[in-house]
Amino acid sequence: MKIFYFGGQKCGKTACAIQKTLELAKDKKPIYVATYLDNYNDKEMQERLKNHKKERSDTFITIEEGYDLSHLQEGETYLIDCLSMWILNNLEKTKEELITQIEKLFEKECNIVFILNDVSRGIIPLDSQSRKFVDLSGIIGQVVAKNCDEVYDVSYSIARQIK
Amino acid sequence: MKIFYFGGQKCGKTACAIQKTLELAKDKKPIYVATYLDNYNDKEMQERLKNHKKERSDTFITIEEGYDLSHLQEGETYLIDCLSMWILNNLEKTKEELITQIEKLFEKECNIVFILNDVSRGIIPLDSQSRKFVDLSGIIGQVVAKNCDEVYDVSYSIARQIK
Amino acid sequence: MKIFYFGGQKCGKTACAIQKTLELAKDKKPIYVATYLDNYNDKEMQERLKNHKKERSDTFITIEEGYDLSHLQEGETYLIDCLSMWILNNLEKTKEELITQIEKLFEKECNIVFILNDVSRGIIPLDSQSRKFVDLSGIIGQVVAKNCDEVYDVSYSIARQIK
Repeated sequence: MKIFYFGGQKCGKTACAIQKTLELAKDKKPIYVATYLDNYNDKEMQERLKNHKKERSDTFITIEEGYDLSHLQEGETYLIDCLSMWILNNLEKTKEELITQIEKLFEKECNIVFILNDVSRGIIPLDSQSRKFVDLSGIIGQVVAKNCDEVYDVSYSIARQIK
Repeated sequence: MKIFYFGGQKCGKTACAIQKTLELAKDKKPIYVATYLDNYNDKEMQERLKNHKKERSDTFITIEEGYDLSHLQEGETYLIDCLSMWILNNLEKTKEELITQIEKLFEKECNIVFILNDVSRGIIPLDSQSRKFVDLSGIIGQVVAKNCDEVYDVSYSIARQIK
Repeated sequence: MKIFYFGGQKCGKTACAIQKTLELAKDKKPIYVATYLDNYNDKEMQERLKNHKKERSDTFITIEEGYDLSHLQEGETYLIDCLSMWILNNLEKTKEELITQIEKLFEKECNIVFILNDVSRGIIPLDSQSRKFVDLSGIIGQVVAKNCDEVYDVSYSIARQIK
């Protein structure tokens, strides 16, 4: 099964996705793919991530992978948290490279739960890097939504299934 | 009854919430809790609020309260317009203080209709105050949504009940 | 029939709207109303638009109209792509003028598919022009939604009918 959760900042999408991942994994410990790279020197973010890691330590194996999602193994259950950070890390790559990498994930016989931060509904930012990030988030989100079995829109901890 | 309306800027959520409040209040005049404090010296906002106040003068008692929502009375019907402004006024308080204050509202035997501006789906702002505001809006929204009897997502005057 | 599609940046709303327009037009070639005016000297946007135009050349007649939508003809099928750009072009006009122009479109016996970029769910911008654009987008969106036969909220290429 491939499942997609999206929503705004602090909407509770990670909690929804964690619960779904644990259901999919059944008795086998699922793998948490942390895409955040600690090269922004952002103390608030580091604190936030440390808390998250502690919360899930009993239930998940955590791996850190900010660039290359291609080595996911068949038979496992993955939670990719989150695609937005992966897009940000890979902003210098072409759109086509990113789409190809994502599409290959759907050929694998494993469970994957994807999380994406919806950044599409504010005013369009002026700087070209932010615009590229917003555009790629939409494009990658479309690829993921098209290929997933289920898609959920999360607002204030309420998940609406839209596919 | 506790009801939650959220939506973007100029989505018509206040009109939806006013209608619902009047239905809940039945024959008794409901109380409009205006959380906007006139200390931003924002003429556009002042004009906007003056128009709003005029529009509702026949149907609501208006009280102005930007900080402390704890003295709501049992047996009354309230419209809190809006939580976003209340969060902005209380940005120096801790997350825990704000959550506690909101949770206490749900112990009272009164009708409350809450309005929140959804600011979660744009690009994450760089300055720490804006980030804090966005994060708290999400966190408080989750608390309210969890405890409310009904939750509505409003887009272009169309209210979708999601709980 | 009058149909309204809204959604965030790069959500796939244009593709949904194009498909609907072709269905409505049946055997007659529909008219694509491009509201983008080439006076921003934005090379990325020019490239994007050239690609869009090429993609639809077999199926649509394209007209360019950034200001005045009043000369739409009865009996035709139009796709207005998009209202957001039209609002941006007309930012110096009053709210009332814009509302009047839009309302007149609903008196015409023609099919119109409207597209609007949802910019309402980010943090409220500080500069007055951006605020005006965000506010007008919400106000015009409300007028369109109220008068349309069908309204769709598009996220990651998934269109949810909400009216």
